[in-house]
Amino acid sequence: MVANTQIIFSKVPTGYPVIGEDITVKKTEFDLDAPLNDGEFIVKNLVLSVDPYMRGRMRDASVKSYSPPFDMNQPMTGHTMRLVIKSKSSLYPEQSYVYGLGAFEEYTKLNDQVAKAYGLVVRNDPKTNGIPLSNYVGVLGMPGMTAYAGLYKIGEIKKGETIYVSAASGAVGQLAGQIAKAQGLRVVGSAGSDEKVAHLKEIGFDGAFNYKTEDTDAKLTELCPNGIDVYFENVGGKMLEIVLTHLNTFGRIIACGMISQYNLTKAEKVGNLMNIVAKRIKFQGFIVSDYADLEPQFLADVTQMILDKKIKYRKDPEAFLDVLHGRNFGKQVVDVATP
Amino acid sequence: MVANTQIIFSKVPTGYPVIGEDITVKKTEFDLDAPLNDGEFIVKNLVLSVDPYMRGRMRDASVKSYSPPFDMNQPMTGHTMRLVIKSKSSLYPEQSYVYGLGAFEEYTKLNDQVAKAYGLVVRNDPKTNGIPLSNYVGVLGMPGMTAYAGLYKIGEIKKGETIYVSAASGAVGQLAGQIAKAQGLRVVGSAGSDEKVAHLKEIGFDGAFNYKTEDTDAKLTELCPNGIDVYFENVGGKMLEIVLTHLNTFGRIIACGMISQYNLTKAEKVGNLMNIVAKRIKFQGFIVSDYADLEPQFLADVTQMILDKKIKYRKDPEAFLDVLHGRNFGKQVVDVATP
Repeated sequence: MVANTQIIFSKVPTGYPVIGEDITVKKTEFDLDAPLNDGEFIVKNLVLSVDPYMRGRMRDASVKSYSPPFDMNQPMTGHTMRLVIKSKSSLYPEQSYVYGLGAFEEYTKLNDQVAKAYGLVVRNDPKTNGIPLSNYVGVLGMPGMTAYAGLYKIGEIKKGETIYVSAASGAVGQLAGQIAKAQGLRVVGSAGSDEKVAHLKEIGFDGAFNYKTEDTDAKLTELCPNGIDVYFENVGGKMLEIVLTHLNTFGRIIACGMISQYNLTKAEKVGNLMNIVAKRIKFQGFIVSDYADLEPQFLADVTQMILDKKIKYRKDPEAFLDVLHGRNFGKQVVDVATP
Repeated sequence: MVANTQIIFSKVPTGYPVIGEDITVKKTEFDLDAPLNDGEFIVKNLVLSVDPYMRGRMRDASVKSYSPPFDMNQPMTGHTMRLVIKSKSSLYPEQSYVYGLGAFEEYTKLNDQVAKAYGLVVRNDPKTNGIPLSNYVGVLGMPGMTAYAGLYKIGEIKKGETIYVSAASGAVGQLAGQIAKAQGLRVVGSAGSDEKVAHLKEIGFDGAFNYKTEDTDAKLTELCPNGIDVYFENVGGKMLEIVLTHLNTFGRIIACGMISQYNLTKAEKVGNLMNIVAKRIKFQGFIVSDYADLEPQFLADVTQMILDKKIKYRKDPEAFLDVLHGRNFGKQVVDVATP
């Protein structure tokens, strides 16, 4: 028997989740030596991804939303990179890395049927290309794919245009800005600390500002002198209201998230929507899983950008509450174990 | 000399325009016998179209918007059907009907260059097909083309879906509902009087309700049991906020106008926008002139629908204030003269 620590969803939070109440740590045990049936395998969790959308899953199961609620008193789930340490599966052989949704616990027993239902894929590229494993739940994982799909499928980005990215130092925002820059756009971002703003400039943003200490409207006027063609929307609320007045005719809003709203019991209302008619704006929501077909192209493009050092990517070993409080910086990854 | 009555934009209104202040009637004279140069011609105005977007043109010239402001102390302009009564133009010969933007006055002298700049087109179909002239500024004019472009270019309507049309008894709404019905959708509409609601049912809407006396949320639940796939948005404000909760995943909002907001000095803010992300909604504004390429197909399709009696269309000889106050019923047309 080995220790198997689990991160349990234990109560629906009001406002920001509280560790020890809404999220609890449970010590259990796992039998590594129990015999496996055909098609079964055991994975060891190496990296967990912590992402803003997970707040929406911490809800009462009766409330409908785009992603399923977490099961009460069960481990939370999210994107993971895991190593197959024992296997009687031909699809997921021993020593394979496996990417996809998984339980937040150290060890998990799976079988082919469940693994396929979760869309788990073997991803052994990091064994040979030298890219850190943690990138596979970040820049090369769901957040990276979110940025990529948003820019190309909703944003229809074109060289010479101006893009503004809110929550730009977050996992998705950083990558959205850098891909857009590589595509020849003017890239402006905002974040909630001077350190984050400095980082955005280091990784190639043409302009960046601290929305907590500076006037968003004035900074957008200064940094986007030709207006905004594409808004990568991660924030919602007042930010969206201001951006609507800066968008150009035929502007696009990539509605990726509205993190400013997730912990409010009553969401803010938004003005200036008449701009959508007057400027023929397209404001479109999307979820990365709608664009699964794009994944091979995304992986090829972005792996090459990383190898060419066109993308700089920062990850911090912090966690969920930091993401929701805006304390995070880049992608939040929990390194659980080394292979 | 003949009398030439003009409708003048004389002051920027606050709230609803006031006749005699913001809009004034001016008696002038017109010399029908003055010699014409080559390329010049005189038109007699037969029908004027009165539309909600015109309120937005009654603004200070310094305020930018999608349609140009009216010129102060000059005749208002809008869509017209006019008859060429004298001509030295080969493009616009005598006795042609001419469709397009024109000054709200009885007689206008034009030349080829100006006429082309305004996109005026000769439209002699009503001479032979028996369709009333007034239809050419309504169901076969800008409002009809707006409904058509909105449904096909933004709404991507599909057989079996449910569409909800607000301001459904208006010029655009009536046609949007009837085209969608002919395409095999379930069509639900709302309007502001029981008489209008009865009319919607007569012209084939599957469901209709009076948003002033009934609870919109409850009626949408009742009349759209499978949710709303496409919302033809003419209203904005609270209506939009409610509809967002009824839209299905991958719903589309055809953002055609927000008439509830035009006469407010401060527009209402809208909640529930997180639905756009969660349900991957596309909320897109458009202006009919963006889709000029669609016009031949529109005219062919809708002319045939009228001749086949698949479209019933009501026009009232009322005017602009009635449109803004919601007193209008169908398309507002001013019959200026008979040919």
